[in-house]
Amino acid sequence: MKKNRPGADREPDLRLTLREAGRPTTRVAVGPAEFGGARIVFAAGPCSVEPESVMQIARAVRNSGASMLRGGAFKPRTSPYAFQGMGEAGLGLLAEAGAATGLPVVTEVLDPRDVPLVSGYADMLQIGSRSIQNFPLLREAGASGKPVLLKRGMMTTVHEWLCAAEYVLAEGNDQVVLCERGIRTFESTTRNTLDLNSVVRLRELTHLPVIVDPSHGTGRASLVAAMSRAAVAAGADGLLIEVHTDPEHAYSDGFQSIDPPAFDALVAECSAIYDIISHGA
Amino acid sequence: MKKNRPGADREPDLRLTLREAGRPTTRVAVGPAEFGGARIVFAAGPCSVEPESVMQIARAVRNSGASMLRGGAFKPRTSPYAFQGMGEAGLGLLAEAGAATGLPVVTEVLDPRDVPLVSGYADMLQIGSRSIQNFPLLREAGASGKPVLLKRGMMTTVHEWLCAAEYVLAEGNDQVVLCERGIRTFESTTRNTLDLNSVVRLRELTHLPVIVDPSHGTGRASLVAAMSRAAVAAGADGLLIEVHTDPEHAYSDGFQSIDPPAFDALVAECSAIYDIISHGA
Amino acid sequence: MKKNRPGADREPDLRLTLREAGRPTTRVAVGPAEFGGARIVFAAGPCSVEPESVMQIARAVRNSGASMLRGGAFKPRTSPYAFQGMGEAGLGLLAEAGAATGLPVVTEVLDPRDVPLVSGYADMLQIGSRSIQNFPLLREAGASGKPVLLKRGMMTTVHEWLCAAEYVLAEGNDQVVLCERGIRTFESTTRNTLDLNSVVRLRELTHLPVIVDPSHGTGRASLVAAMSRAAVAAGADGLLIEVHTDPEHAYSDGFQSIDPPAFDALVAECSAIYDIISHGA
Amino acid sequence: MKKNRPGADREPDLRLTLREAGRPTTRVAVGPAEFGGARIVFAAGPCSVEPESVMQIARAVRNSGASMLRGGAFKPRTSPYAFQGMGEAGLGLLAEAGAATGLPVVTEVLDPRDVPLVSGYADMLQIGSRSIQNFPLLREAGASGKPVLLKRGMMTTVHEWLCAAEYVLAEGNDQVVLCERGIRTFESTTRNTLDLNSVVRLRELTHLPVIVDPSHGTGRASLVAAMSRAAVAAGADGLLIEVHTDPEHAYSDGFQSIDPPAFDALVAECSAIYDIISHGA
Repeated sequence: MKKNRPGADREPDLRLTLREAGRPTTRVAVGPAEFGGARIVFAAGPCSVEPESVMQIARAVRNSGASMLRGGAFKPRTSPYAFQGMGEAGLGLLAEAGAATGLPVVTEVLDPRDVPLVSGYADMLQIGSRSIQNFPLLREAGASGKPVLLKRGMMTTVHEWLCAAEYVLAEGNDQVVLCERGIRTFESTTRNTLDLNSVVRLRELTHLPVIVDPSHGTGRASLVAAMSRAAVAAGADGLLIEVHTDPEHAYSDGFQSIDPPAFDALVAECSAIYDIISHGA
Repeated sequence: MKKNRPGADREPDLRLTLREAGRPTTRVAVGPAEFGGARIVFAAGPCSVEPESVMQIARAVRNSGASMLRGGAFKPRTSPYAFQGMGEAGLGLLAEAGAATGLPVVTEVLDPRDVPLVSGYADMLQIGSRSIQNFPLLREAGASGKPVLLKRGMMTTVHEWLCAAEYVLAEGNDQVVLCERGIRTFESTTRNTLDLNSVVRLRELTHLPVIVDPSHGTGRASLVAAMSRAAVAAGADGLLIEVHTDPEHAYSDGFQSIDPPAFDALVAECSAIYDIISHGA
Repeated sequence: MKKNRPGADREPDLRLTLREAGRPTTRVAVGPAEFGGARIVFAAGPCSVEPESVMQIARAVRNSGASMLRGGAFKPRTSPYAFQGMGEAGLGLLAEAGAATGLPVVTEVLDPRDVPLVSGYADMLQIGSRSIQNFPLLREAGASGKPVLLKRGMMTTVHEWLCAAEYVLAEGNDQVVLCERGIRTFESTTRNTLDLNSVVRLRELTHLPVIVDPSHGTGRASLVAAMSRAAVAAGADGLLIEVHTDPEHAYSDGFQSIDPPAFDALVAECSAIYDIISHGA
Repeated sequence: MKKNRPGADREPDLRLTLREAGRPTTRVAVGPAEFGGARIVFAAGPCSVEPESVMQIARAVRNSGASMLRGGAFKPRTSPYAFQGMGEAGLGLLAEAGAATGLPVVTEVLDPRDVPLVSGYADMLQIGSRSIQNFPLLREAGASGKPVLLKRGMMTTVHEWLCAAEYVLAEGNDQVVLCERGIRTFESTTRNTLDLNSVVRLRELTHLPVIVDPSHGTGRASLVAAMSRAAVAAGADGLLIEVHTDPEHAYSDGFQSIDPPAFDALVAECSAIYDIISHGA
């Protein structure tokens, strides 16, 4: 991938991710969903895949206009005793729900050894916040040839985030979508501080599409719709939203998940805003 | 204002600023500009009042749809050797430009001793970021009876910000508008991190109107339009924008000021977004 | 004080506070306490002056080796309903306790209008964290001719802090002591993050003495002794410590106050460390 | 390791790492170095292992009193184009230098697949800052049975850090040493903000030994000695120091590396401080 030699540190960090003047946004197509294309992409679904609800949720979000299904089978959890996801069984359920609804699926991979397994079920690999500088994982994801959804780390600068993307591109894989999901600050009335400045700044700096996750970015279901609108108005190419048919009983993150009727209204409002702003760059 | 006695610390911090269920947003009228009303408020103008340009800028922003003129005569500057504003002469020029264009003016007051002086020229008093916990100043501004624009401090939580507003309301003055202007974080590609989560959260917590300053919130002229749209989509009642006819030669903050044609486009885009989102609360 | 003119922004921020090569630390003498001198300075006392206890606390800290008495009469409080200090009555009690014990007193001034009043009672003026960019107050404190204790703001960079000191020195007053008291970060197991790096960095950058307030810097009484030792080992010229004879019933900040026996042990440990490190600079 | 089931989230996060009342600090012995024992542990060596200098550096630090050799063979680098370490060849050189000097070696492992390889050369596995929430790696390190040096992440709270340790302990491995190395804040005059509060707080919360890395914690060679003293005075059980015979030409991090004479003085000063503070807990 690179010449690993002393002295390399004096060379530029970013070679493949920067946008040269006039270069259009790279389109990343995952089945019918096209990031950076004419239509906004809604990737929606549960935080954790659960056998009782994943099919029902997939149908609901598809009917509201989602073009992609999200759901976690391998969950990175702060505590070793918290629910860690259903693992391969969850991948199977997710793929089944995707096939039944015609939605491509995106799911997180945590371990470089799991990249082949997850690639067998998923249409797009998600690299989560806690893995933003897991360089072996970034390289494996790049080498897999699968489209990659690269979430910002909670204390990652825009520059470091682009460097992480550069690890993927350096493997010959330019199908990378960046996802702003909030950063860690002193403010505690919200779980994270959603940094929409970064979306606009990235538009200037890189040719890669940028989407926003207002579910993690706020950590409060009551803020998700308004911040989704804000993200689209700022120029985001898509949204990643946690939706659950019964948020109160979700295996994880119910407090920030919205229900299908709320998602339906969100899609309508965000699409209207997307249509009135210019997408020149 | 309060019973100042030991033991008071065990009582609630917020009594007057919280929104009880069902209470509508308080309208704060400053001449023709009405914060929290049917139309979005654009307060625009130069960072520092300058004799050569203030009248021309006032005319330009009025023609584009601004309903308020902003400009600094007393500037809080990190360095004692930086330009500190024109002082009273600047207040006179600002008031003159306001009168000529029919725009009410808002300007910062830094020193509790200057409240009467500034109140003699301005229609609304701005309390700047660095003064968010200048309690003597908050009390004087409250006692002046003038409408107050209270900018968030760069290190202030939403709770502390509401407490600062409470100092003003406790003086019997409920004509307070909150202004999000970005917080200090580890990210350095932008001057501050504009926290639009706070706008949505404040809508839930308080009956006071909330506006956004994307000029300081981004510190980059090229980001101002997109973040203005985002602020409006998040539900802001108005915008505070630095506009200069010749940003490169502005006395201060030219790097984050936009020119009149850019402001004109911003007003059109933001008004369109304002119209399609519901303002129920 | 300065030439206030456009264009001044392009000149250096720091002229009087920087340490030229070889310049020794400026000594700031306040009665028998000498910051930057041969002996470490302990400034100790209650958070708020209380009539029942201030004299008893003053005697206790003097007997343990304190060379200065601290105590608040004007308290900057987040909530308008919290106890705001005893005001002038508190100043009188503090001065009385100082006179009875031979300890010079340091106390906070919040309002530029109060500088003459507070100067009438205090030997040293404290500018608190929330006032670090209260420029009118900094100028009045500078002009008073009194020694100034300048606490770092909770979100102030080292550069901004030196600029604040520069405001005081620009009034012709170089009797300024800097006090690190913790900064605001994402960490919440402690009230603030005490930044001892700043103490060492300031030693390189400025000729002004630097002390540390581990009471606010930790916000936990159980951490005060260890962080006092650390501060001295890092090279601090002194410590500012909250001591109360009955911390549980203190009017404010009891949770971070230590009692006289704990202070006694702290003085012994810190003096021993002070003696074994070189104070060359 | 755990029952992975929904509902587990409602149980306590920390079961094995907390200190029950009266429990002494766990001793972690790595050859002659004993963390949490009677003598302070100095682990020193180059940032990156380099063939020209590693043996010379090992001899120098051993002669000054180091009881452990540190050095990186797998380097986590922000940029894919920066020098990534010598890999297995570097492990061999490090082990050779350790054997020649009698110093046990500690080195970072980045990839769960490399745990057996690195365990073959190293006496202790380092989990670096960027891997603090790399849960597959934490599990593999735990299962290896090797002592683990767990560095705090730059964005990690004390609680999250203990949870990461809990992942290792939950594998049946309680030979874990925590290493404070600075956190990311708004301050930029130092590379990170070394949080010594955490050292003292951890002493209260956990039975695991805690050491400090002032090289990364300051990012400036000129601050390393003073912050080493501060760390020891705060109660650290050891120090991790970057030492290089020719810092200016180091492959990486030369700006924060000290040379052997400076290390020699640091060992003497820190040992003197260690001896005068009580190590009761």
